[in-house]
This record gives sequence, C-alpha cells and structure tokens, in this order.
Amino acid sequence: MLASQRLHDFNRPLQDDHQFRLTYTQDLLGRRGLDVQDIVRRLVAFQVAIPSWALGTGGTRFGRFPLGGEPRSLEEKLEDVGLLNQLNGSSNSISLHIPWDIPQDVAALQQQLQEQRLTIDSVNSNTFQDQKEQPASYKFGSLSHTEQAAREQAIQHNIECVRHGEALGAKTLTVWLADGSNFPGQQHFRHAYQRTADSLAAIYEAMPSDWTMLIEYKPYEPNFYSMVIPDWGTSYSLCQQLGQQAQVLVDLGHHLPNTNIEQIVGRLLHFGRLGGFHFNGSMYGDDDLTTGSMKPFQLFLIFNELVDGARDEAVTNAAVAYMIDASHNTKDPLEDLLQSVENILGAYAKALLVDRALLADYQAANDVVRAEELLRDAFLTDVRPLVQEAYCQSGGALDPIGAYRAERIREQLIRQRGKLSLSTGL
Amino acid sequence: MLASQRLHDFNRPLQDDHQFRLTYTQDLLGRRGLDVQDIVRRLVAFQVAIPSWALGTGGTRFGRFPLGGEPRSLEEKLEDVGLLNQLNGSSNSISLHIPWDIPQDVAALQQQLQEQRLTIDSVNSNTFQDQKEQPASYKFGSLSHTEQAAREQAIQHNIECVRHGEALGAKTLTVWLADGSNFPGQQHFRHAYQRTADSLAAIYEAMPSDWTMLIEYKPYEPNFYSMVIPDWGTSYSLCQQLGQQAQVLVDLGHHLPNTNIEQIVGRLLHFGRLGGFHFNGSMYGDDDLTTGSMKPFQLFLIFNELVDGARDEAVTNAAVAYMIDASHNTKDPLEDLLQSVENILGAYAKALLVDRALLADYQAANDVVRAEELLRDAFLTDVRPLVQEAYCQSGGALDPIGAYRAERIREQLIRQRGKLSLSTGL
Amino acid sequence: MLASQRLHDFNRPLQDDHQFRLTYTQDLLGRRGLDVQDIVRRLVAFQVAIPSWALGTGGTRFGRFPLGGEPRSLEEKLEDVGLLNQLNGSSNSISLHIPWDIPQDVAALQQQLQEQRLTIDSVNSNTFQDQKEQPASYKFGSLSHTEQAAREQAIQHNIECVRHGEALGAKTLTVWLADGSNFPGQQHFRHAYQRTADSLAAIYEAMPSDWTMLIEYKPYEPNFYSMVIPDWGTSYSLCQQLGQQAQVLVDLGHHLPNTNIEQIVGRLLHFGRLGGFHFNGSMYGDDDLTTGSMKPFQLFLIFNELVDGARDEAVTNAAVAYMIDASHNTKDPLEDLLQSVENILGAYAKALLVDRALLADYQAANDVVRAEELLRDAFLTDVRPLVQEAYCQSGGALDPIGAYRAERIREQLIRQRGKLSLSTGL
Amino acid sequence: MLASQRLHDFNRPLQDDHQFRLTYTQDLLGRRGLDVQDIVRRLVAFQVAIPSWALGTGGTRFGRFPLGGEPRSLEEKLEDVGLLNQLNGSSNSISLHIPWDIPQDVAALQQQLQEQRLTIDSVNSNTFQDQKEQPASYKFGSLSHTEQAAREQAIQHNIECVRHGEALGAKTLTVWLADGSNFPGQQHFRHAYQRTADSLAAIYEAMPSDWTMLIEYKPYEPNFYSMVIPDWGTSYSLCQQLGQQAQVLVDLGHHLPNTNIEQIVGRLLHFGRLGGFHFNGSMYGDDDLTTGSMKPFQLFLIFNELVDGARDEAVTNAAVAYMIDASHNTKDPLEDLLQSVENILGAYAKALLVDRALLADYQAANDVVRAEELLRDAFLTDVRPLVQEAYCQSGGALDPIGAYRAERIREQLIRQRGKLSLSTGL
Repeated sequence: MLASQRLHDFNRPLQDDHQFRLTYTQDLLGRRGLDVQDIVRRLVAFQVAIPSWALGTGGTRFGRFPLGGEPRSLEEKLEDVGLLNQLNGSSNSISLHIPWDIPQDVAALQQQLQEQRLTIDSVNSNTFQDQKEQPASYKFGSLSHTEQAAREQAIQHNIECVRHGEALGAKTLTVWLADGSNFPGQQHFRHAYQRTADSLAAIYEAMPSDWTMLIEYKPYEPNFYSMVIPDWGTSYSLCQQLGQQAQVLVDLGHHLPNTNIEQIVGRLLHFGRLGGFHFNGSMYGDDDLTTGSMKPFQLFLIFNELVDGARDEAVTNAAVAYMIDASHNTKDPLEDLLQSVENILGAYAKALLVDRALLADYQAANDVVRAEELLRDAFLTDVRPLVQEAYCQSGGALDPIGAYRAERIREQLIRQRGKLSLSTGL
Repeated sequence: MLASQRLHDFNRPLQDDHQFRLTYTQDLLGRRGLDVQDIVRRLVAFQVAIPSWALGTGGTRFGRFPLGGEPRSLEEKLEDVGLLNQLNGSSNSISLHIPWDIPQDVAALQQQLQEQRLTIDSVNSNTFQDQKEQPASYKFGSLSHTEQAAREQAIQHNIECVRHGEALGAKTLTVWLADGSNFPGQQHFRHAYQRTADSLAAIYEAMPSDWTMLIEYKPYEPNFYSMVIPDWGTSYSLCQQLGQQAQVLVDLGHHLPNTNIEQIVGRLLHFGRLGGFHFNGSMYGDDDLTTGSMKPFQLFLIFNELVDGARDEAVTNAAVAYMIDASHNTKDPLEDLLQSVENILGAYAKALLVDRALLADYQAANDVVRAEELLRDAFLTDVRPLVQEAYCQSGGALDPIGAYRAERIREQLIRQRGKLSLSTGL
Repeated sequence: MLASQRLHDFNRPLQDDHQFRLTYTQDLLGRRGLDVQDIVRRLVAFQVAIPSWALGTGGTRFGRFPLGGEPRSLEEKLEDVGLLNQLNGSSNSISLHIPWDIPQDVAALQQQLQEQRLTIDSVNSNTFQDQKEQPASYKFGSLSHTEQAAREQAIQHNIECVRHGEALGAKTLTVWLADGSNFPGQQHFRHAYQRTADSLAAIYEAMPSDWTMLIEYKPYEPNFYSMVIPDWGTSYSLCQQLGQQAQVLVDLGHHLPNTNIEQIVGRLLHFGRLGGFHFNGSMYGDDDLTTGSMKPFQLFLIFNELVDGARDEAVTNAAVAYMIDASHNTKDPLEDLLQSVENILGAYAKALLVDRALLADYQAANDVVRAEELLRDAFLTDVRPLVQEAYCQSGGALDPIGAYRAERIREQLIRQRGKLSLSTGL
Repeated sequence: MLASQRLHDFNRPLQDDHQFRLTYTQDLLGRRGLDVQDIVRRLVAFQVAIPSWALGTGGTRFGRFPLGGEPRSLEEKLEDVGLLNQLNGSSNSISLHIPWDIPQDVAALQQQLQEQRLTIDSVNSNTFQDQKEQPASYKFGSLSHTEQAAREQAIQHNIECVRHGEALGAKTLTVWLADGSNFPGQQHFRHAYQRTADSLAAIYEAMPSDWTMLIEYKPYEPNFYSMVIPDWGTSYSLCQQLGQQAQVLVDLGHHLPNTNIEQIVGRLLHFGRLGGFHFNGSMYGDDDLTTGSMKPFQLFLIFNELVDGARDEAVTNAAVAYMIDASHNTKDPLEDLLQSVENILGAYAKALLVDRALLADYQAANDVVRAEELLRDAFLTDVRPLVQEAYCQSGGALDPIGAYRAERIREQLIRQRGKLSLSTGL
C-alpha cells in the first residue's frame, strides 16, 4: 500500500490546475441549476468491483505477452485491488473466481479484507475448463450436459462457490455458462435449455435467501454455433422460472454486432431483472478491452438508462452490481483498470447531468432534436474535474495513472513478485 | 385460371424424367426404411400463405422497376394466388394487408375464395404509414405513441382489421410494429414499452376467443436507433403479459448479423409461443429476397426444429402459421413466389428425412460428428423428385416456373391489366 | 434570407454565456500551448457541402412523413442552403443531383449563386432510377449492364452531368453506382467489373483535365447479394486504372458491421487517393442519420486521420471534398443539417487539439496508454465554445438551431411553399 | 499406415450401395451431357494441404479439451497426414509452421515424405508469439514494429522459413501478420503500413524467383481495434508494390459479418492475384470450424468462382494453393479434417456441374431466375457418389470416417503416443 502522504505529495502540484477546471465546471453547471456537490458525492459513493482474473496479463488464443509482477496468490490480488482503491477510491471490492481463488486461510483473508477496507463482491463459478482430478469433463457442457454426472458435478461446484462466498461475506453468485455447441445437430436446443433450467434450479435452491444469482448471456465463444444462454431473452426466461433472486447480468461484450445494449438495459430495468453489469470495451466481439475505449457514447447512454431507472420509483430493482470484466493483452493491467474505472465514472457523471423532467417534456412533445441535444449536451460536457474531485475527496490521486507511474509501482511489483510471475488462473 | 388440361399437357413430356428420378429417390430412401409416400403426403398437405403485397413488383427506397400486369384489386390478387396454387398446390391462402386490401363486396369475395379454393390466412395491420384523412400521424409511433389519440387510433385500426378478418373467416391478426426511434433520447425505452403493452392488451381484449395475435419483432428499419419490439425476448414478454392467444412471429429477415435463428425457433417452441413464420431470404438485413436463396442450410435447420417440435408431445403449441413475406425488386413476383415455395418444401422434405431417434442417440453420446453428419445427410439428399411428386399429386405442374413461362402468363396479365398497372399498396 | 441584424439580435443575449465559456476554453487550451485563434480560423474556413436532396423530408421504403415547406425547385434549394450558411457560415456550397437539379436558366442560377455567395460543389449522376422517356432501363445495371445500349446511355448521362457542372463552375463528378445483383448467378463478377471499368474510362476521358471523378463504394442496398463496387479496394483499383483524377469517396454509412473506417481513411490518404467524404450517421447500415449522432468517437477518429494527413507532407493529396449525404425521416431537414455541421465542426476542432509530435513519441515508445489518453483528452475536451466562436466570426448565429426556431423559419417556408410541397427528386 | 488390404476389406460391403448411387448419378448427369468420368478425374486430382497445427486438439482462450494420441513431432504429423491421404487420396501435402515444425533431420524427413508420397505445401512464419531466447518481443508488432530491431528479427525469421522450405522442396511462404493495435492512437496507420510494406519487400527480395509469397488478411483478432492487413484491398496493394510473386491469400474466417467472399475471389482472380486459400467454417468470426459446416452454399459459390476462373483464359493466374486452416476444439482432429476435405470436394464437384455457356446466356439476357436456378440445380444435386468414387479410384475408403473408426485409429494413436500427448505448437 501507498502511504497516503505519497498521494498527498503527488496531488499537490496538480491542485492549481484542478481547482481552475473544477471552479469553472462548478460555475458552468451551477448556472444550469445543477448541484455539483451532490454529483461529486454520488461519484465518491460509486464503486466498481475488480475481478481477480483481470489483475494479470491476459492474452488471446494466439499468444500472451506478460509484463511481470503479476499477483501469485489471492492475497496478492487483494493487495493489487487495495492499491487501485487507494488511487481512485472507487474499487472497494473484488470478484472471486473459483477454483482459481479458493481461500486457503479464511480468517487471515477476512483480516486482510478488513485492513484494506475491501469486500468480496461476488463469486464466479467456472465450468468452462476441466480441473485436474475432476471426474467428469466439461468438454460437452456442464449444467446442460447430457450426462447427469457432469451436471451434478457442475451443480455441486456452483454450490461450493456459494459456500466459499458465504464464508467471506459475499452475497452474489455469477453464473456464466460456456455451454453450447460448435456444430448443427450436436445439441438438442430444447432439451439443453431444460437441463440448464433444472440445474440452475438446484443451485438456486441451495442458495441462502439473501443471495442473488446473476445469469450471464453470450451469443458465441467458446462455442461457435450455439450457446445455451445466448441472449437476454434466454437469461430472463430462466430468471422468471427460478424466482426473484435470479437476475440477468449484462456484459458489454456479449452481443451480436449493432445491438442496442442501452435498450436491453432499460428493458431489464422495466422487468425488475437487471442484476449486474460486466464492463469492458469491444469493437468486434468479446474483445475485453478497456471500458469506454471504443464506444464512449454507448457507455454514456447505458448510464443514462441506469440513472433513469434508479430515479424512477416504478423500477422495483435498481440495485445493480457493477463489475469490470476485461482482459489486458497490451496494457499494464492495473493501468487498464484505472482507465476503465475513470471512463465509467465519467459516463456516470454525465448521466447525472441530464435534466430528466425536461427530457420527459421533449419526449412527450416528440421534439426529437431537443431531446437528443439534451443528452448530447451532457455527453459533450467535460466532467473530468468532477471525477478528479471525487478521487480527491476519497483520498485518492488526482491523476491515478500518473501517480501509479510516478510511484513506479509496476517496477516494485516486478521486484517483489518476479518478472515471470503469472497471475493464478491465467 | 389455367385449364387443368394445360397442366396435364405440360407435365406429360416431363414425366419420364420425373419417374426416373422419383424411382431412384424412393429406392434410396426406402433402403433406409423411410416411408416416401408419407413424406409426399406431408408435402402435399403443407401450405404457405401468400401475402397480398408480394404480388406486385417491390422496390427499395432508391427506385422501383415494375414489369407490368400487376393486380389492381383484391380480386386480381386472389386470382394470382389461385394461379400459384394451381401451379404448385401449396399456397391455398392469402394474407391481407389492411387498409390496402379492404374488401368492397364481402359476399362476392367469399364466393371467389370458394371458387378458387382459397382461404384468408391472416390480416395484417398497417400503422407504419399515414393514410389520407387519418387524424393522428404515425410519424412518431402508433401503439407506443406518446399521445393517447394516436395510440387509440392505432388500436381501433387493429380492431377494425380483426373485424374485416372475421367477415372473411380469418383467425389471425399479425402485428408488425414499426414504432421506434431514430435518435438517442427521442423515446423513453421503458415508457414506450409499457404504452405498447397496454395498447396490445386493448386489441387483445377485442379479439374473438378463437383468434391468435402474432407479434412480430425486428431490430431496425424503418427506425435506425431503436425499435420498440426489436427481438424475440421483447415479443415473448409481451405475449406472456397478454395471454395464451398471443404468440411470437419470426421473420427470417428480422435479426442482427449472425443470429442463430433456428435456436430461437427451438426456444419459442419450448415455451409454446411460436405462432407464425415469415419466410424470405436475406444476406444483410431485411433484404426480402426469395426464401432459401441465400442460406439454404439455415432454412433446413429451421425446418429441422419445426419438424422436431411437431413430433414432440412436450411441445404444447406447434401449430405454426407459415407465410411468405418478401419483396420482388428484380424477378417476376410470381416466379419468385414459386421459387420460394419450392425452396420451403425442399427444406421441409429434408427435415422429414432425419432419423430423430438416431439423432437423439448421437446427441446423448456426444458423438458430434455422427450427429452433424446425420443432419448433413438429409440436407445433401436431393429431394426435388419428392417435391415434384407432391406438385403432381396436387394437380399442379412438375415444373411450376416452366409451366408459368410456357403458358406465357405474365404476357397475358400485361395484356389484361396493362403494362403500367401497379399493385395496390405498393 | 435572414437580415444580418436579426442574427445580431438573436446572439446578443447569448454573448455573456458564450464569452464565459470561450474565455475558459482559451485559458485551458492556452495553458497547453495551443493557439486557439488559429483553431477558430480553421473552423471558420472549414466548409461542408449540402446535397440538394437532403433539403426535403426523406423516408424509408415503408413510408414518408413530410413536414411541409420543402423546396420545389433548384432555386428554392439554393435559398435553403444560403439560409443554412447564414446561420452557421460553414455550408457555402451545394451538391447537385442530375436529373433532379438540371438548371433551367443557367445565367439566373449563376447570379443567384453569386448573390448568396454559394458555389456548386459537385454534380452527382443518377443511374439507379429510370427516368421517363429513357430508352434503356437500369433495372439490371447501368455502367455494368450486360447490354451496350444501357451502358452507353449511362455513360452519356454522366458526361451530361459534367457538362451541367462545367456551366456552373463545379469541378467534381461523384459516381455512386447502384449496380449489382440480388441473387447468385445473376451477374458475372469479373465481367461486370470489367464493363464498369471500361464505362468509367469513357467518362473519365470526357472529363476536363481539372475535374476530379469521385468513385463511391457501398457493400449492399439497393442490391442485396452483390454490388459491383462494394468496398474501398474495388474503388481504389478502379482509380488506379483510370488515372490520378480518379479518387475514392468514403461514405460513412457504406460499410459492413464493425468496419474500422478511420483506418480506411488513413490507407487512402497514404495512397493519395482519398478524394471525398459523405457524412452521415449510422448504427446498422446506410441509415443516413445526423452525422455524429451515433458514433461521435468514430467521427473524431476519422478527423484525427484527416488532420494528420493534412499536416503530413508525405501525403500527396489531402484536398478532400466534404459533403453531407443524409436523409431526414424524423427531424426537420434544416435542423438536421445544422446539427450535422455542428458535429462535424466539433470533431474537426477536437482533432486540431491533438499534439501530434507528442503522439508520435508515445507511438514510437509503444506507450499505448499515453497515446490513447492523448486522443481521449482531445475528444473529452468541450470544444463547443470554439465552434460557436467560429459561427460568430462568420456572421452566423451562436446557436443556429435556436435562431432557426426563434425566427420560425419552417413556419415561413410552409407559408411560402405550402404544407404539401415536395422537394424535387424525393 | 493402413495396409491397403484393410481399406479394400472395409470398402467391399459398401460397394453395392455405392454402385447403386453412382450408376444413378452417372445416368442423371449423363442425360444432361456431362462427362462424369472427367469430373471424377478432376476430383481425384484435387489436393488440399493439411496444416501441421490442425492435427492436435485446438482450443479457445477459455480452455482446451485434448483427446489424446496427438502427434508429438513433425514425423508423427507426417504420419497423420499420410493416414488421411490414404483414407481420402486428397491430402498429399502438409503446411509447416515455423518454428513449431523445424525439421531436425532434413534427409530423414525427405525420405519420409517420399515414402508417404507427401510434399511440403508451404511454410508459414510465426511472428505472433514470442519464442524463448528471442531478443525482441512481438508484443507490439513484428514486420510493422516501430523498432527496427524487432522488424529485422521478423524479417530474418521469414527468410529462415524460406530456407527451411527450400530444403524440403516447398515453393510458398505464407505470411499471416497478427500486427495491429488494440486501442485508438496506439499505432500510426500510415506509418505502420509503410513499415510493413518495407519489411515485406526485404523478405520478397530474399525469396527464390520460383517462390510465391502469400499475404493473408484478417480484420480482427488477436488485435481488436485495427489490424495492419485487415482486408483484401490492403493485401492486394502490398502485392502490387512487391511484384508478381506476391499473391493474396483468402481465409474464409477472416471477414467482417456478411461479407460476400465469393465476389472477392472473383475480384482477385480478375487481377491475377488470388494465390491461396485457407478453408474453414465460421458463423461469427475466425471460428475455425469444419469447412462447409456452416455455410455450404457459400462454399459452393466460392468454388463456382474458382472453376469459372480456371476455365477462363483471360485469368492469368488461376493456380490457387488450397489449404485447410482450422482448429478442432470439439471433434477428433483427424475426423474433422476428413469431413472438411469431403465438403470441399463436394463443393468442387458441384461447381464442375455448372453449364457455363448456358449460364453466360442467362446472364446476358438478365434472366435472373434461370441463372440462379442453374447454380441451384448444381448445388442441390447429390454429388457424394462422385466424391466417393474419387476416393475409391485413389485407393482410399468409400467412407473415410467410417474406416477411421472401424480401424480404431484414434485408440491406436493413444496407445502409441499417450493419452496426454500434445501436438507441438499447441
């Protein structure tokens, strides 16, 4: 961990410029009647979970180019998240991936969490790889497998994930199912769906009553003909059958080309079934790039729906779990995560600028130009001073990446963990 | 109408070759234990409705190149459908489009239907264009419109469609909603959905208890940012709210790139919510080409699901309404429709060849290669002799397009209706 | 035309707020060493041509909802463009579409152009529709037609376009070819290409030596299996065969899903073959929406290439012709055009902020995060005060749409031209 | 290797059925004046190279499920290809991947090649992964790298590939460049292109005068913002700069959604620049599935272009190198390859059925329906008896997969090579 004095020292020479820009932004938004302090408070409160698997260098099936200093244990992963949270004050929780992150010493881990003021956001099951010593293979599926033994094994693994999560205070199980088929005829669509529904029901039964099950969807990869849960409609139908604790998880990279994701977000909010979000950036498919790096306007429009839903009493469940789910093939993973969080906060801040009463008026009058311009005005406003102010008020760095580099953190990590360290699970 | 002797004369010189190919196909399939006569009977029984709007030359927003002889009235449209049905015995019904096809003299129309042994398949409402004298405009929506007057007008129009249909013995209302938005901010996603749901409920209420409402979905066009009903999940959720008479309609051209449509078909069958089908061909979007012209394997895989569902008692509703919904920019519309029906029958025939018990065994054993090869074997088999035999047994032409050309029907139609006749509605 | 005093009066109450924001922006950018006055000068100088066909309400193949007051003649189209140019000072030229815009009285038109300080940007040929009395039909192609008579007719039409253009001082012929096929087998790919190349050569020969031929490409629509010129590679190969006066035209809506358009722009600049640009916005295909409405970041990245090319001596031809090519189904066409121009100017202004020497350093060092952040910093900066200052310095309105509405211009046009006036050509 | 008697024994009980189907097919096609023996001869002569890397179980970035018995050395890879070639007589060559397949003992390898009657088809360089001890990293590119040392290393590696190939009698170097960028700003498009062109020129210079350099393109993956060679236009432009020995390689999985690949094939044939083909199957992206498994009609249309080009004297270079390039995540790799070859031969056989003179007549007359039906007729004809006859005449199995299973070859390989053997390179 960084000494807070270091951050203080880092911020000092940047304060003048920050105040210059912040003052202007406050004036600008104040002239429109916006409560800037309230926006900053909301930004301070906003938290995005960091997935344990995004702390090391990712890769594609074609290769991997690690840069060293990757966390070699769950404890080191927590250290990395703690560091990020020190820098930006917006990542106070971690998503675990079982079996990669099975805690060895729960009590010690709990203590570390407390010391670093972190929580466990959710546990993620893994039935897309075979683990050593595992009796049944997932080559042809897990919760949807034709053989009961494989299904049962996958069910028990998910329940085990819940147990690990309970020990650490988590309340969410995220199920991403890689099940599907690569060729026509391989899988019977209707039967595979029903087997999946039945398996999920068994897991749901075993879940504590204050837990949420998030059901992710994805149209393709690792299967390239069909996925058992390819779209929001399938996730939603499964949730309906399971009960109110089952919710849909939207991953930004899990859609066919040209999908209007923000509309899906609105749809699920309307149904009270939007449970969680996996942020990343994509241009072609599940590219797992930095959030907001490719389609910043789309990211804003998604937050526009989220904020709209959160402010609408008719929306029965607007408590969405936010998590990054990206891979870092090119950039330093920690820098990439700092960028992603910054882009997310920026999109959120812009969505908070929208005058929803006025927007409703324009929409009612079908004044398309004015309605669009209202959103564009929010999008085009430079809200970075507000995000930086939030960093500052959280005790973080005005420029998290700058501080990360100035402190030569990667170099330190390489010294501590080695040039060839590999993040567990990757 | 063609004198049946003419078809007889046309077929005579083709019979030798037909018998040569049919005999072989019977032997080939018989060796595998298939009941060829049963397959032919099913092909004879299979009927695809013809949409009234597909009988004239279509066009794109860039232009239209009519070829003449287009039907100038509903009566002439029935004549064209009757002719098609004479030629292939597979199109004994027509889908009406209101207001383009409002019958002037119901009794006369009923008589014509009887004489031509045709029925009215469904009525299709139109709220994507403004009609003269119409008080409210649909420029900004119809069933989802922000203004109650526009919604009410659209509701009444749909109810009026039902009334027209009742008078003619139809039992199906097809709702394709062009509502949506071209720009972010234009429409409030959640409110537009709810207004649509409420409007549909009002129509549903007014529908006789033996009618079915088919709810179509489409991701884009004529709106290019969002459509109120963009995907099967939205259609399905609306059907759930309305009741069991509401069913989803799948149009082959209404999907985002790379969508696995056959899986959606299986999904909806599983839910007992697949009510209808609009056949056409597409490579890019809603291209409205000849069915089967672009992705014949996909068409086969869709029929594979349909046949699988029809033979499975667990599927509670497999009574799917089949209709062509295409546009004919390049080809003679009647030739295009004959081709489409032939391609549909071919895909159906191939799906009937699949040994489902054996397929289930391969699937259970995860023998991917054998399961796939089983489907491919059906797909690669040349079933055209079976389709032609079905034509023959229905009193049609062994080669419908050949007969159409030999009889110089287009030339006759041009003489009767003129070179510049325009199909009503286009 | 608006009296300039009206614009002055309109601007007066907005000046305080404008100066507040402009001063800040100048300070902000000045601190980074940017010459804000130079940027504003470049914005003032930047001009985007308005296409004559975008001044009326467009539509889709499903319908059209005109709003009235559309220009009924070429003269009225010039009036509309003159009005736009008064409001934003950035649209001092018009693209003509032949035969929709064949001038009746050339001398009078020249005088009108002079009075309104407008020029003719380019002439666009039309071989995608049949005109009355035209001997050969373009149903099956024009420059690529299998029949020589049709090809010759299309060649002569293009040459005639050049002649009309010469009379009015234009120097550019834009060729968008709708030729292609809807079905496999319809067209012989290699022969169709060669016929097209030969036809273009005949037109090229007839073009004055100071003219440029722009060759547009489009992957689909109005043909849905193949287009003769579907991609930049085909346009480029044709240009290579024709000569240096032939250049590629990029239309933002003419690409397959997920295409990296900015890279194509860079590629063509590298080859000295980027001749022109058609701006519009799209989410799915050739949606023809307001420029920048859907993918503002992409628009910025495209301008980043354009500015980069313009500043690089190695780029032999960076004189790109800019034109809007959109359709207005929902919005008032004139408001849509004002928005488009504003979004274009904003993207251009942001691209001018990029420190290219520093970017080159980051790229050389493969400092991916810093290189990306440099671009993002420019993109996230609010440049609207600079664009407004450019409007102001050009004698236009600080808020062109606001002025347009305040002056009730649409209402005036409806009074003058009628509620049912239809723009010629639509 | 299988004793040929084994194949003879395997075929014997299948001969009756084969002759029944073959006789019919000969009659059917003979009635149309087709020379069936000539078609079979062409099928016998047709050869598709097998890539060394497709002999083991592939995988995705999410996991890998090997089935055992994979070849542990180049020698074992040759054994596998020899076996395939025994079974289908259509795969008499192998593509090497350097450094995975650097031969240790060239003389021994030459002898093995001779004994198995195999040749080396091409050598493929690898600059998308870092090899141990390699001084410069390819993390940020190879031939396009900003640093000369990395470029030089990649150039030398390619030249080394040529040297290895020369020793083994190969004549083709395939260059697939993974270079590109994941984020806007990371790479300067124009400079990266020029560096690539210069690097390729250095390799081209070092290539013997009877060699061909194949330049592959791919729009995305492993880079997800831009690839240096994303499309055929870029490959083509590089070939033009290099010289006539440089040719474009088309990989079926390397295109954006909805691309008309057969048209690209025709285009490159027209330019005399189609040098090679990588066959695989895809629904979404570079899915690397069994060739023909997803879009069999597209595969036929591609062969339609290839056959058309091969028969046209105007096409100056129709000597296309055919290779499979797939990955086998689900199926036994050898079965998958047998399927792929069968699908390729089937598509080729169908393309040989097309009456090109008649097609030209229909095209000249713009008889769209007849032209399309001519192609469809070929596609719908069941040509499997011809493919099987070709197997038979080559001394292979009438049912290669059946023989592979009957001989329990995978089980043998597992016994010989072990359950956990991993194919080198994967």
